[in-house]
Amino acid sequence: MAEKDADMIFKEFKQHSIAEFFKKNRQMLGYSGKVRSLTTIIHEYVSNSLDACEEAGLLPEIRVEIRELGEDKYSVKVRDNGPGIPKSIVGKAMATVLAGTKFHRYLQQRGQQGIGAASCTLFSLITTNKPVHVISGTGKDSFECDISIDIKNNKPMVTEMKEYDKDFRGFSVYGEFADVKYENSDHGIYEYLKRTALANPHASIYLLEPDGKEVSFPRSVNEMPKRPKEIKPHPLGLTTSDLIDFAHLSDSRKLSAFFSETFSRFGPGKIEEIKRMVKVDFDKEPKNLTWEDAEELVKSFKETKWIAPELDALSTIGQMQIELAMKNILNPQFVSVIERKPKVFRGGIPFAIEVGIAYGGDAGRINKETNQRGGSILRFSNKVPLMFDASNCALTSAVNGVAWKRYDIGKFDEEPITVMINISSVYVPYSGVGKQAVSQEDEIIEEAKLAIMEASRGLQRYISGVRNKNVQQSRYKMIMRYVNQLSDDLSELTGEKKESVENSIKKVIETKYKGLFAESEGGESAALSESGGNEDMHE
Amino acid sequence: MAEKDADMIFKEFKQHSIAEFFKKNRQMLGYSGKVRSLTTIIHEYVSNSLDACEEAGLLPEIRVEIRELGEDKYSVKVRDNGPGIPKSIVGKAMATVLAGTKFHRYLQQRGQQGIGAASCTLFSLITTNKPVHVISGTGKDSFECDISIDIKNNKPMVTEMKEYDKDFRGFSVYGEFADVKYENSDHGIYEYLKRTALANPHASIYLLEPDGKEVSFPRSVNEMPKRPKEIKPHPLGLTTSDLIDFAHLSDSRKLSAFFSETFSRFGPGKIEEIKRMVKVDFDKEPKNLTWEDAEELVKSFKETKWIAPELDALSTIGQMQIELAMKNILNPQFVSVIERKPKVFRGGIPFAIEVGIAYGGDAGRINKETNQRGGSILRFSNKVPLMFDASNCALTSAVNGVAWKRYDIGKFDEEPITVMINISSVYVPYSGVGKQAVSQEDEIIEEAKLAIMEASRGLQRYISGVRNKNVQQSRYKMIMRYVNQLSDDLSELTGEKKESVENSIKKVIETKYKGLFAESEGGESAALSESGGNEDMHE
Repeated sequence: MAEKDADMIFKEFKQHSIAEFFKKNRQMLGYSGKVRSLTTIIHEYVSNSLDACEEAGLLPEIRVEIRELGEDKYSVKVRDNGPGIPKSIVGKAMATVLAGTKFHRYLQQRGQQGIGAASCTLFSLITTNKPVHVISGTGKDSFECDISIDIKNNKPMVTEMKEYDKDFRGFSVYGEFADVKYENSDHGIYEYLKRTALANPHASIYLLEPDGKEVSFPRSVNEMPKRPKEIKPHPLGLTTSDLIDFAHLSDSRKLSAFFSETFSRFGPGKIEEIKRMVKVDFDKEPKNLTWEDAEELVKSFKETKWIAPELDALSTIGQMQIELAMKNILNPQFVSVIERKPKVFRGGIPFAIEVGIAYGGDAGRINKETNQRGGSILRFSNKVPLMFDASNCALTSAVNGVAWKRYDIGKFDEEPITVMINISSVYVPYSGVGKQAVSQEDEIIEEAKLAIMEASRGLQRYISGVRNKNVQQSRYKMIMRYVNQLSDDLSELTGEKKESVENSIKKVIETKYKGLFAESEGGESAALSESGGNEDMHE
Repeated sequence: MAEKDADMIFKEFKQHSIAEFFKKNRQMLGYSGKVRSLTTIIHEYVSNSLDACEEAGLLPEIRVEIRELGEDKYSVKVRDNGPGIPKSIVGKAMATVLAGTKFHRYLQQRGQQGIGAASCTLFSLITTNKPVHVISGTGKDSFECDISIDIKNNKPMVTEMKEYDKDFRGFSVYGEFADVKYENSDHGIYEYLKRTALANPHASIYLLEPDGKEVSFPRSVNEMPKRPKEIKPHPLGLTTSDLIDFAHLSDSRKLSAFFSETFSRFGPGKIEEIKRMVKVDFDKEPKNLTWEDAEELVKSFKETKWIAPELDALSTIGQMQIELAMKNILNPQFVSVIERKPKVFRGGIPFAIEVGIAYGGDAGRINKETNQRGGSILRFSNKVPLMFDASNCALTSAVNGVAWKRYDIGKFDEEPITVMINISSVYVPYSGVGKQAVSQEDEIIEEAKLAIMEASRGLQRYISGVRNKNVQQSRYKMIMRYVNQLSDDLSELTGEKKESVENSIKKVIETKYKGLFAESEGGESAALSESGGNEDMHE
């Protein structure tokens, strides 16, 4: 074999744009499989609409229309009543990968990468060669235009820019996509929007299905959820490299001012304390902070006690909302919901876990092979349903890590049980660019496990109650079977009438098992009244 | 709540570099967890070294040195005897994300993205603020230098460039990393290199562990594996968008020339055939090909029969190599290896699956809770061990999709069985940027399943043989227990001597069960001799 030298090998050395990279590796963004690809598109557009409406303080009203254009070819239109996107920004927002408002903010939002909408524009271009068409009304201006993407340079191409109806408020995007398929499955759009409605009771969502059927998920609360506060980073969450970045970007003239302005919980007392611990000069300009300075500072941060990060950064779904939603959808015999206090991971990034557990009724998922119900997990991240890559997710690991036997659940996969988990955070560490699984961070898994265990405690009481009742019921039945024979025999022995003997015996037995009937009836009717009377979200 | 308008919301709109993105989301590249992060670094450097040596036609000799520098802080040095990297390229090669030689080639290589080495430089910078130090000798020039990365702009920073010993040939990279940990676990470096050696018997790999212990995995074959051929894309694998891209980059003057020069299997007969099927003018310049033309052409490609893609594009591990390796490492009672003929996915991308199945001995993995052996899967992609994200991988799905009961395996998780799978392809569709799991492509899962099932057929014969033998042995033992008593009784009844009766009975029984002993002894000794006499790769 001829030996190739370095010059020959490297003659084809080239640099590529991130858009080119994702064009080649679109499965990394969630565009793998026809059904999943269509769900990914809806997921990106709807998440952006919800974020925008909430940031503008508007109750979201989102209309999704899907039409079949040909074999594996569909059009998608998503329209919201949000703040719109300014003309000067819209191109980049829709057609530049890694451009956005969300990247560096310590603010809980659904999007955090600046990839979603641009990935849809890319996918439209490479499957149908069409631009997406947008309409935007911000209140100041109102326009419509076509947007496509220059893949080689990761730059937007905006064409056909026109004025639009001045009264239009909101944002609408229309795109045509091939290599996709509408399917009413566990991973399809109907299920995605149903779960979105479940976790966002303040949003109204409408879906026009390709067969013309209209589905609506009307809002069930008329108040905006508590707006998550944009917070300053907590000193405990900083790496040396982060601290350098913040310092070198800072306009503060002294380190001490920089600390109190940039980070949370860094009051004058704390500044004095840290000052005593390190050799770094606090009158230094932040721009001149060296790696060694930063290393020493980060070490000292870890050695002192801090007030926990600000927790109003997080906006959860809410205990009551989860309970109502699970009862509506699953009609279970038992529900237990836990909202845990926020914790931190990686030292200082706040997050909160909510868990709902439902048992019996329509809880769980039907195993097609055995035709029996087994455990199912509904995962959410910042109120966005996670539909794919379940096996790779920290939230799934948490469920699998629970010793279900302790809660009288033999095997999770063989019981009619649904676990709903939502993680809220200013930064959710996704394991992939497609944001369908939470990375296996120990602190997140542990906290989610604790939440599940807490919610399961009530479940165990319920199940062992049901089991006791079953045991007693079968004992009762067994004894009653002998009453007839026994009455005959006793009647013969004593000369008393059989009827009278039988009645006496029955009384004794019924007294002994009285608790059984009282509990059973009371319990059942209570369970029924709790889950009844709610609107059915299935339709 | 104050309403924010679009201008306020979008005032922080920014574009970010891919390096910034991965700095923030390093878990997506495999930098999550201390042990995994260190394995990722070795994985990136060693894969690049193996690719470079093979492209230059050199038997790889790779030396990995790991030293502990402090708490969770290690240095890594990887040196190879490859072709080196030219001075003009080295900065970009080591410190620009998405730059490389491998991106657009239809050539089976371990790397395919141009991310690996740059991600290590990035990780070194953000955890220790140090550049990486490289030494390169290409035969023409020889130099050493420091390389770091300008994260904001995704550009290399090369410093301290110096001449180096003219006789030095190869490439060496040294870096210092924090937030990492050396651990001798299932996911650690020792295991990674052991598996790399297993799949690359032509490579010599040395490892210096942090405690000073040297481990060597010497090459077991002295021949280079068949070099995979760089192939032309097959018409069946093209999307409309691909065809447009190729056409618009082409220098050919006519469409007909463009087809035969650019794609494989596109001879003059095929050109005539396609010409008759479509309305597109074949004298057209490829540069002027429209989306409609391309759509029509791609449709016609799918409607005709083609010779299968060139299969010498693929370089597999080899049936004999897999068998030897599994015997060496697992000392199993049974091994079966299948190398399937290459297939294609997504219409025209060739791939090949190899599967080895080992049963008994040290096969499987010990479950720490039950202390019993259960099934284990060793996944490889283009001869690179995949150590993480197993649950997310098409190869795992294939194993889980096999109805193991048909092969007399009750539950895969409860049997001493190891399945080794390697996928070879010019483009492996990884599900994430960290390249640890193969995306769930139906054609890949199906083909891998077929390979596993084919390999399992022999296994079933073996296991049912063992089980039959066990049944017969226990019957034989049971009968022999009665021989003494029976001989006594018969001797009394017939007057014959007990000994003589006993011998006759034993003879009858042993004749009946003769097969049992013959098979058993023959089988066992054969199994022993097959797996004996090989070097032990464990040490």
